[in-house]
Amino acid sequence: MSTIASEAGWTTIEIEISQRLLNKAYQRETETLVTEVRHKINNLTDMEQLWQIHDILSAKRYDLDGKYDAREPMLIFTFAQLLKEGWISLEELHGLNQAKLAKISSLSKM
Amino acid sequence: MSTIASEAGWTTIEIEISQRLLNKAYQRETETLVTEVRHKINNLTDMEQLWQIHDILSAKRYDLDGKYDAREPMLIFTFAQLLKEGWISLEELHGLNQAKLAKISSLSKM
Repeated sequence: MSTIASEAGWTTIEIEISQRLLNKAYQRETETLVTEVRHKINNLTDMEQLWQIHDILSAKRYDLDGKYDAREPMLIFTFAQLLKEGWISLEELHGLNQAKLAKISSLSKM
Repeated sequence: MSTIASEAGWTTIEIEISQRLLNKAYQRETETLVTEVRHKINNLTDMEQLWQIHDILSAKRYDLDGKYDAREPMLIFTFAQLLKEGWISLEELHGLNQAKLAKISSLSKM
């Protein structure tokens, strides 16, 4: 096995850490969305704002569907994006090997 | 002008009555929707319900876009549908000529 393949492979423990963290990030992101929608609908003054809420939900649903890609070859990019957007911290990725952490951290700054 | 054309034509007053009533019905229907969405989001217990709310808004937006057809040749059908769904009453159509009222009433029962 080459060094690259070894870095790219995910151990069972890494997969477990990843799955837990993805669930946690998804929970945070959707809870934030619920809070936003709740605030908007409870303070709605104009019917047009109802369709703005619908637009927000449409965009966010599309965004979430694509973003939480848990396939192994995509995990690095998934975590980099979540880190960039602030849904996870680098500390929460503790347990992944150094090469993965370095890639995720680096990609998150792009 | 034939009798049919005369029945089908809309006077300025009928158009004014129609426009006011369409606005009122749209207001009622969207306010009911806001109340429903507000209740659902304030009592949300599962994130999956957020996407149910999105589905409701998508379906309702599509429904409303098609239903409030204010073009003269469509007004009879628009009112018949709103009457059928309970968003307007026959009394509120007072001021339209008898032929129109009879058609709307009859169509609303189909």
